[in-house]
Formats: sequence, structure tokens, C-alpha cells
Amino acid sequence: MTAAARIMSKFRLAVVQLQVTSVKADNLSRARRLVKQAAGQGSRVVLLPECFNSPYGTSFFSDYAEKIPGESTQMLSEAAKENQVYLVGGSIPEEDGGKLYNTCAVFGPDGEMILKHRKIHLFDINVPGKICFQESETLSPGNSLSTFDTPFCKVGVGICYDMRFAELAQIYSRKGCQLLVYPGAFNMTTGPAHWELLQRGRAVDNQVYVATASPARDETASYVAWGHSTVVNPWGEVVSKAGAEETVIYADIDLQYLSDIRQQIPITAQRRDDLYAVTSVQEASG
Amino acid sequence: MTAAARIMSKFRLAVVQLQVTSVKADNLSRARRLVKQAAGQGSRVVLLPECFNSPYGTSFFSDYAEKIPGESTQMLSEAAKENQVYLVGGSIPEEDGGKLYNTCAVFGPDGEMILKHRKIHLFDINVPGKICFQESETLSPGNSLSTFDTPFCKVGVGICYDMRFAELAQIYSRKGCQLLVYPGAFNMTTGPAHWELLQRGRAVDNQVYVATASPARDETASYVAWGHSTVVNPWGEVVSKAGAEETVIYADIDLQYLSDIRQQIPITAQRRDDLYAVTSVQEASG
Repeated sequence: MTAAARIMSKFRLAVVQLQVTSVKADNLSRARRLVKQAAGQGSRVVLLPECFNSPYGTSFFSDYAEKIPGESTQMLSEAAKENQVYLVGGSIPEEDGGKLYNTCAVFGPDGEMILKHRKIHLFDINVPGKICFQESETLSPGNSLSTFDTPFCKVGVGICYDMRFAELAQIYSRKGCQLLVYPGAFNMTTGPAHWELLQRGRAVDNQVYVATASPARDETASYVAWGHSTVVNPWGEVVSKAGAEETVIYADIDLQYLSDIRQQIPITAQRRDDLYAVTSVQEASG
Repeated sequence: MTAAARIMSKFRLAVVQLQVTSVKADNLSRARRLVKQAAGQGSRVVLLPECFNSPYGTSFFSDYAEKIPGESTQMLSEAAKENQVYLVGGSIPEEDGGKLYNTCAVFGPDGEMILKHRKIHLFDINVPGKICFQESETLSPGNSLSTFDTPFCKVGVGICYDMRFAELAQIYSRKGCQLLVYPGAFNMTTGPAHWELLQRGRAVDNQVYVATASPARDETASYVAWGHSTVVNPWGEVVSKAGAEETVIYADIDLQYLSDIRQQIPITAQRRDDLYAVTSVQEASG
């Protein structure tokens, strides 16, 4: 391996666990400051949480929704360019053609938007006495799987509830993604039960890195996020994990290590394509 | 729900974590005794570990291999009938047409063999300095996915390394299985790293019960099994778990609880079949 290839096989990822408030301007300025802080620590890819410009809740989405491009994505574009990072802009409520979406916009170091992922699987659950939430009351689902390229590796994007659907991760991994990112806001019921388990499962089944970005926990909010933004390695180990409060966590993504794991336990080569298949029905588009 | 349906929606599962020795007759008689013990505790389905009649290792498989039917499966048939249980006979090295397989035979309460599953994914891994094993040196792979019916629910069967391949569990669950069983012998490297994680992942992703049966740990063996036979519920929680020693563990499988979980977090209905598919390329056969 050449020295250049060796350098490209490692890069620093930062996850910003933002404290999201009801003041959009505050959310944007604090996010921008933390992206800068993350870049100052050598991060080349920075991940923001789901719904980072707005409180999470069906009653808030329409008030905080924006067109893309708009105020929030303009900030993301500038922050990516100023700091020379790939910026996965968590998600914002997006308005388009009279419909609302839960949308992740990704920007390259030149400030250009390189991907727009609309949450495919809307969060409609009802655990009696614990948590009832129906995103579909106000949001419409996206219809595309979404990946983007960096000089380091290909990255697959899902938003929160998308993580429960193993097929997304399987297809992303088959397309060559070595890192999956899920901005997400699990809650105080599904968080302790499934947040880390799902990430570790996606990582070990597909032998990829998995990173999640949650808003920090706000006990006074109508929807209390679990926090605990996490990075998991391809062996299924948690390599970095936030608590509940606002913070930035870091992980050095090592694609040579990923390659070693895939040689040691070569499940990607041992799959029985003669017996089963996981397929994308329609091709991804931005 | 009628009283009869309510009764059928619950049943006791037993997992026999057998101490496997080099003396086949001992293995068979002890397995038979523990199946009887499990049935005495009200178990309707009993699960034995991978390679329960033979030490696990490529140098042992041909010496301990049998035709099916043969001595070991004859014992299984009799034990199933005597105790009126569904008996998932872990696995044995099977000889057929000059080839060896790692094979699980399942018997109904009438003593009839109702399924034969040959391990599909051979265990060929090499984690330097930790564990190197190449089942394919001596074994041939099976070519069929395998499920069987009980009056309680449909059951999907995999053997050990089969558990690493999420597709099996996904297809079994789509075929209506509510319980997945994996006789398996993870080791002292992959055991602590992945044994429980994989089971909990299969359970939460497919909202099914998952049960594994390992041989008890024998520190003097050439291949040291991790032990820790486990049952996981559809919420992803461990409901029963063995230590390292020979034992029988029990779990009351509650199909109404499974149905409740699937209503609360309805991922099986929310899958985006318009975007992706997990399909069986060839249909399962016994």
C-alpha cells in the first residue's frame, strides 16, 4: 500500500450531539460552532442529529419546515466549505410541493449539496403507556435509497427509524459502503431497548462502521430523545459513545481494519447467492 | 381468543446444553436423559446442541459420522416419541454418498423425522492468533433453507455459522416462522464478541423468538465451545441463558406477546417492498 493510500484508509469522523431548542437561529448557530470545533480536531466527516433545527414532534414540523435550499441548508453548505468537511446535515423538516419530509442533506467540502435523503420509513409506533408517535400524521416518506462518495469510502444514509430495516444496510453494504450513518432520535423506551443493539447488529452483519447522531436529551421536551450518539466498528464494538448531554464524539475510521475483519470472517464472500438475495427494487437517486 | 387458542399460543421450550465427550454412547445416553428431564418440566419443544454426538473438529467428523437414519437419529426418534416432544436434534456429522455434512434432524412427537437441515454456510474463518477453523476441509454444505411446523408455530432452523447470515432469518420470518433455532458452537473468541449480539439482532430485526444450543464448555477440548445457550424474545431481550457448564434452560414462548410487539412496532407491515426485497432463490425442502 502506498503512503497516500494508507492515509486515505483512515479518517476522523465526528458526531455532533446537539442540544436542540425551540429557537431555530440558536440551533443553527450552535450546530455551526460545533462543526467548526469538530473540524478543528481533524474530522473529515461530520454528522449532525435528526431534526437538528427544530424540536422533534408532529406539531413542530410544519412551523420549522424549509425548502431545500433554504436557511438551514445554506448554513450547512457554508459550514462544510469553511471547514473543508463532508457534512451530513442530520435532518430537517423539508417542505416541497405542499408536502413535508424528514430530510437529510449532505454537503461536500466545496459547499455543494451531494445528497438529499428523505426518511423512507416513517416512525409510526404505539407501545401502550410508553410511547405513541405517528410521523405519518404530517410527513410523507422518501422513496430512494441514498449513498454518497468521499475520497475515503462510500457512505450509506438512513434516518432514525430507517435503521430498524436491515435491508437498507444490506443493500448499502453490497453497493460498497463501508460507513453507514443514521441521524436519529430514539426515545426513553426504544433507546435503552434497541438503539445500541440495532447499530451493533448492522455493523456486525455487514462488517461496516455505523455512526448515529442523536439530539442531546431535553427532559422538558414533549419528545425526550435518548441521546447516546454512538460509533460502532465492523467487529460490532462500540468505539465511541456520548452520554445524554450536548457533546461532540470522535472516532478514527480505519478501512484497513475493516478489510482485515472481512478477511478473518469472510461472510461477504461466503454468502449463498444461489439460495437467497437482497435486492434493491429501484435504484437510489439523490 | 378461545381457551384452546390461548393455550396453543404459549409453550415451553427447553435448550439442552450438553457436555459432549469423545465417547459417543455417553453423549447419546446423556442427551436422552436430559431430553426426558426437559419434557418432565413441561417442555413441548427441545433443542440439542451442534455436534452433540461427537467432539467438534474436522479430525473427528469422519469417525463419528453416521447415515441418517442411523444410531444417533434412532435415539432422537425414540426420545421424541417417548417424551411426546418436538426434538430439534442439534447436529451430527452425517455421511451420505461419500460426503460429510453437518446435519440437524428434527423429530415430531410421533417419532417421525420431519426435517433434515444440512448446515448451509460452512465455518471457515481465520482470526490470526485467536481462532482458525476450516469446516470445508472435510464437510460439504447443504443447499436448502429449512423450516418445520408445530401446533404452536412454524420454526426456522440454522446451524451455528448460518446465524451470521441475516438473510436466513429474514426469509424464515417472512415464511411465518415465529421461532428460530440455531444449534451452534461458538468459541472463546467469537463467543464473547458475537454470540449474544447475533441472536438479539435476529430477534429484534424479525420480531421472533431466537434460541441457541451450545455444547457445554470443555477447556481440555481442541475446540473450546463458548457455552451460554440462550433464548431471546421478540423485543430483543435475553429471557434465559446458560453459563458454561452442562445444564438445561427453559423459556416460555408466548406468541401473543410476539403478536403484541409486532403491533406496537409494526416493522413487518412497514417494510418498503416497493424499494427492496429479500428473496429465497430456491424453495426450502427437507
